[in-house]
Amino acid sequence: MEQNKDKLVKSITSRDEDFAQWYTDVCRKAELMDYTDAKGFIIYRPYGYAIWENIQRHLDAEFRRTGHENVYMPMLIPESLFMKEADHVAGFAPETAIVTIGGKETLAERLIIRPTSEVLFCDHYAKIVSSYRDLPKKYNQWCSVVRWEKTTRPFLRGSEFLWQEGHTIHATETEARAEVLGMLDIYRDLGRDLLAIPFVTGRKTDKEKFAGAEETYSIEALMHDGKALQSGTTHYFGTGFAKHFDIKFQDKDGVVKNVFQTSWGVSTRLIGAVIMVHGDDSGLVLPPYVAPTQVVVIPIMGQKPEVAAASAAIKAQLEAASVRVKVDDSDKSPGWKFSEYEMKGIPLRVEVGPRDVLAGECVIVKRLDGEKIRCKLDNVAATVKSLMKTIHAEMLQRATANVAANTRTAVTYDEFKDLIQNQPGYVKTMWCGDVACEIKIKEDTTATSRCLPFDQTPVGTVCPVCGKKAEKVVLFAKAY
Amino acid sequence: MEQNKDKLVKSITSRDEDFAQWYTDVCRKAELMDYTDAKGFIIYRPYGYAIWENIQRHLDAEFRRTGHENVYMPMLIPESLFMKEADHVAGFAPETAIVTIGGKETLAERLIIRPTSEVLFCDHYAKIVSSYRDLPKKYNQWCSVVRWEKTTRPFLRGSEFLWQEGHTIHATETEARAEVLGMLDIYRDLGRDLLAIPFVTGRKTDKEKFAGAEETYSIEALMHDGKALQSGTTHYFGTGFAKHFDIKFQDKDGVVKNVFQTSWGVSTRLIGAVIMVHGDDSGLVLPPYVAPTQVVVIPIMGQKPEVAAASAAIKAQLEAASVRVKVDDSDKSPGWKFSEYEMKGIPLRVEVGPRDVLAGECVIVKRLDGEKIRCKLDNVAATVKSLMKTIHAEMLQRATANVAANTRTAVTYDEFKDLIQNQPGYVKTMWCGDVACEIKIKEDTTATSRCLPFDQTPVGTVCPVCGKKAEKVVLFAKAY
Repeated sequence: MEQNKDKLVKSITSRDEDFAQWYTDVCRKAELMDYTDAKGFIIYRPYGYAIWENIQRHLDAEFRRTGHENVYMPMLIPESLFMKEADHVAGFAPETAIVTIGGKETLAERLIIRPTSEVLFCDHYAKIVSSYRDLPKKYNQWCSVVRWEKTTRPFLRGSEFLWQEGHTIHATETEARAEVLGMLDIYRDLGRDLLAIPFVTGRKTDKEKFAGAEETYSIEALMHDGKALQSGTTHYFGTGFAKHFDIKFQDKDGVVKNVFQTSWGVSTRLIGAVIMVHGDDSGLVLPPYVAPTQVVVIPIMGQKPEVAAASAAIKAQLEAASVRVKVDDSDKSPGWKFSEYEMKGIPLRVEVGPRDVLAGECVIVKRLDGEKIRCKLDNVAATVKSLMKTIHAEMLQRATANVAANTRTAVTYDEFKDLIQNQPGYVKTMWCGDVACEIKIKEDTTATSRCLPFDQTPVGTVCPVCGKKAEKVVLFAKAY
Repeated sequence: MEQNKDKLVKSITSRDEDFAQWYTDVCRKAELMDYTDAKGFIIYRPYGYAIWENIQRHLDAEFRRTGHENVYMPMLIPESLFMKEADHVAGFAPETAIVTIGGKETLAERLIIRPTSEVLFCDHYAKIVSSYRDLPKKYNQWCSVVRWEKTTRPFLRGSEFLWQEGHTIHATETEARAEVLGMLDIYRDLGRDLLAIPFVTGRKTDKEKFAGAEETYSIEALMHDGKALQSGTTHYFGTGFAKHFDIKFQDKDGVVKNVFQTSWGVSTRLIGAVIMVHGDDSGLVLPPYVAPTQVVVIPIMGQKPEVAAASAAIKAQLEAASVRVKVDDSDKSPGWKFSEYEMKGIPLRVEVGPRDVLAGECVIVKRLDGEKIRCKLDNVAATVKSLMKTIHAEMLQRATANVAANTRTAVTYDEFKDLIQNQPGYVKTMWCGDVACEIKIKEDTTATSRCLPFDQTPVGTVCPVCGKKAEKVVLFAKAY
């Protein structure tokens, strides 16, 4: 058994040896995705797609709870519509895929595959809104978008990716701003409750904000290699798009006004975050509530009827408790199965053999730390439920401790450069607000500003770059 | 009140006056969809999309129950991959949308937006399958596809539509054939259990089958105007694609063999079927189990606290019983609301006013036939549950009776032409099996063969067109 296991485990690169290679190894060996002949276009295999479906289920329920409705806009955008808002065009035009032929004929107007759908929502809202009674409109769309990328990586950066994009319009600035922050909270809570990732929340600098937005907010996560990953964003547009697209309504006071607008999205990039925050040298480690399979039952000598019966009973018991469970009674060796399901990051493994059955027990093994728990056969569901809760808390706690241990403070620019070059993680520093200093940091160190965190407790008084008075606290990091 | 109502009701065309206009009126006035500037690309508005989500929820559960897994394949197909199977190319190439520019550069290889994803699944299966242990693979994908259409109609025929496409591979022909018929059963049951549509099931003639399939099966529905609508298909590919794409496995007997393959799909066209089977001159009529909102509560003089309280209590009672309910307590008139929710086809309307509250009662009105039921306030949920069951059965029964009344039998070609030209619905006749006779019927009458129904009880002995001996029973109809 151990031989088989060693062979499989050795087939992925160690995390600390080559993190990038480890990452792609896990993506493929855990059967999350596969490549295709079109660069940057990946196949979401059943196991990877099921993680996305669990994220979708959680978020979709939250979106509905907060009064949002799902819609579907066309995949293709006429070029003239796409060109209506200048900042937006500047941000997205360089990475568009363009349809020039349809039904064997060259099209009179070229069509852009959506890189994001702001303009489609704007165009529609302008048509259907005329009174304050029509507001707010809080729409969301689940779809894929295409952005032509030169450097691609599974889940992190692809020419096509799956996401949701929320687009809302409101009668007042107050309401729109509340939406932008409220949705950021929902994303943050997704991390806390499902992904076991402690997202740092804050506002993006103007340099890093979305093309066309007044303000962008983000959730940022810290990967095992000490690099940050922007994991979701929410945008406040003010009336910018509304003016370009003529989205107006007659307010209660009789005055015709432009709507206040937001958009927000997370993508399959979150799968990448889960892999890189929690994975280890044996492969993927999935937080229990997002895991497609939460428990795998492995019968030892499963050809014995009493073992097969015990496995089936455990499965039934867990299914009755709404635990996602699989039994692997294939003719592969237990050792092979252990490695396989470690690679796939299944949170709990239940082993049951003839002697266990005699004792009325089974063994439960935690993927997170290999801890083994003996458990009475009639108490598996309760034990599993309790263990899932513990594991989730442990994973969140570990990740939180990792962020705390890898968030450092710099007062001088020498300190800043030393930390950002030689230590993993975030460096917190003061900033004067001048984009020139932000650019200099990027040029000198390749690090970028991640956000102005909501916790703005000062860590100094001057900008480390220019020495001028500084009131803003910024988190910098090298990032994906 | 009645004035308002009349105004709204009159704003759609009568079904029997101009069915096509009635259809588009309902699509727009019920807020199911909206047009965009790109021809054939529609917006699925929240109400229309929610119908699709209910269909998805039902089917997705059925797919899982029968061992299928969801995946996501890229939206774009390299042209060389697309061209691998000749029949398939001949069928789909004329209606493709082609990306020729990505990231500001002309692509070395053009990319086709998927019109269907057979070739992507084949390419992937060839890579991941090598042993009988890897089989079967039963994958499904929810996505949109693009087919360039000259004549488009909301939900029925669009340049982009939403659908699911199942793609499976099997070790044996028997298993693959069982899959093709099993999925057809799931589609048929979707009609029976959710859409209240009695689909006719059968096999397509070779002329009408899918490009690349050995056999195609379909579900056919009869619309109010007597025309048929192909509403879903399942395909048996044999080893045709497997040979072109080299999908092979080593069987238990050690021999390397090609897999047997299937695909199957239904689309948002089903929304069109629901509209055209059940709708009436007041708008949409939704079967209860697919309706996004099953009950709308309309308070009469809702500003009175006891009425508002009663409405809220009814809502709470229905929600506790898992009924999808909305209260409309807006300041619009009850008459306006009645028309609005009739247009939207909400199955049940609950009216509650001050006198009802005093009597401890409310009035429930059936959208299907306007029947009014007085109901004790503490018994609303039970009554609604029971009414939904009755309404579903009534709608299915009506639709079934309509199919029976409009399925006629022709022995001679004169009879056939007379019936197909002058009567709505299906004409059942014998057929020699020669495609020439099938083509002649289409040329003479515009009717097409819908299917060889599974019920092959003979209705004659010779082909009405050529007079030769005939053993096949075929259903013909004019079709969408």
